Amino acid sequence: MDFSLLNEGERVDDLQVNNLKIIQNPKGFCFGIDAVLLANFTTLKKDAKVVDLGTGTGIIPILLAGKSSTSHITAVEIQEEVAEMAQRSVKLNNLEDRIKILNKDLKDLSLKTNTYDVVTSNPPYMHPHGLININNKKAISRHEIKCTLEDVIKVASKLLKHHGKFFMIHRPERLVDIVSLCRKYKLEPKRMQFIHPTYKKKANLILFECRKAAMPELKLMEPFYVYNQEGNYTNETYDVYNKKSVEEGGK
Amino acid sequence: MDFSLLNEGERVDDLQVNNLKIIQNPKGFCFGIDAVLLANFTTLKKDAKVVDLGTGTGIIPILLAGKSSTSHITAVEIQEEVAEMAQRSVKLNNLEDRIKILNKDLKDLSLKTNTYDVVTSNPPYMHPHGLININNKKAISRHEIKCTLEDVIKVASKLLKHHGKFFMIHRPERLVDIVSLCRKYKLEPKRMQFIHPTYKKKANLILFECRKAAMPELKLMEPFYVYNQEGNYTNETYDVYNKKSVEEGGK
Repeated sequence: MDFSLLNEGERVDDLQVNNLKIIQNPKGFCFGIDAVLLANFTTLKKDAKVVDLGTGTGIIPILLAGKSSTSHITAVEIQEEVAEMAQRSVKLNNLEDRIKILNKDLKDLSLKTNTYDVVTSNPPYMHPHGLININNKKAISRHEIKCTLEDVIKVASKLLKHHGKFFMIHRPERLVDIVSLCRKYKLEPKRMQFIHPTYKKKANLILFECRKAAMPELKLMEPFYVYNQEGNYTNETYDVYNKKSVEEGGK
Repeated sequence: MDFSLLNEGERVDDLQVNNLKIIQNPKGFCFGIDAVLLANFTTLKKDAKVVDLGTGTGIIPILLAGKSSTSHITAVEIQEEVAEMAQRSVKLNNLEDRIKILNKDLKDLSLKTNTYDVVTSNPPYMHPHGLININNKKAISRHEIKCTLEDVIKVASKLLKHHGKFFMIHRPERLVDIVSLCRKYKLEPKRMQFIHPTYKKKANLILFECRKAAMPELKLMEPFYVYNQEGNYTNETYDVYNKKSVEEGGK
């Protein structure tokens, strides 16, 4: 491994699948199970053109590239230091030809509109209220400081081609906002999966698949339980972490 | 029991709680667990003024009256024969002073607007497509023939006073439509519960509580499982059937 890619305070995590690795700074925002769930909920056709909005560490594009043959992934991150770290993770995985990290504000992209097959996003979940240090990297990844939920959905819709797919993970508290905004920007919710800590607990995350300009008809998926009653991962959680391909027809 | 209240082909079912009974015609539309779930999901303040839209057999108003002290329930049913049967069920339970059955089209009500504390509805679930006998009583109860989902939500919003509550049960396929229409008519979804046949199966019903002109913030409830793995009712299902009060502070 090329340790020269690491800055002080950073570490390399092995993603335990297809030999993928990622650089993270434990003092910054580290990816969680939500990113892994989103990457594995996403389905890609061969050679799909993909944009990931608010890519953070680059976890989503790295998982998607590692689990498919696509070589057209553009990943957008507004924070310079974070984008630069994601770029080093891309290099660490030898994915420079397939993933392009853009250090840009997603509201200010010059990417071609009506073009992409898939847009993914694991956006900041929280409304910015109360005392937040708005210059804090962790806060920017977690709160809607630099972009709102509406910005993400609006930009996703613009970038997608007709019938292109938008995959997102978010909190149940925002379900009504998400569904209303997706309708507003012609991204019809077609598939939804609720993620529960255990089967006795209420869902704390929702996976969405929307399709641009599609007819209404929502398909609700079986609920997903992260842990069993003994507090261990369920088989389905292990399956997500071990899934080797997100390409349609892959395993 | 006063059997003179029964027409030919009808039967009386004991609701197994608070000595309530209901007249049904097995050849027509009989109430299901959805009605019972909705009645028990509904919460009433003392003396709440209630309207039930599309009341059918009258199951919802009878359960609400039987499980609370309210004496202002108006139940609307478009089908003359069905409304007349519901009226006899009201009489059978000696609830004539507390439940008024209106044989009317809900789009054509002369009830006072901005007045009611609670509106409930267990509306027809299905889009009318394919071959449907549109004069068939069962079809009218099941399909959006005489009224659309939008009609129900629009009328509910009109009738409710500021911060009044709308309780509805419906299918997950319509979640996006429901949420969008509720927003359109200022009924903010505040509480949602997903009903699953078992914990391994996807939800097939959703309970909604919306509040007129309320701030957005959805509270997702614990999932509800009707059956356990052995195919028997879960304890929570028994609890719903046996719940004696839906009045706030009641048991």
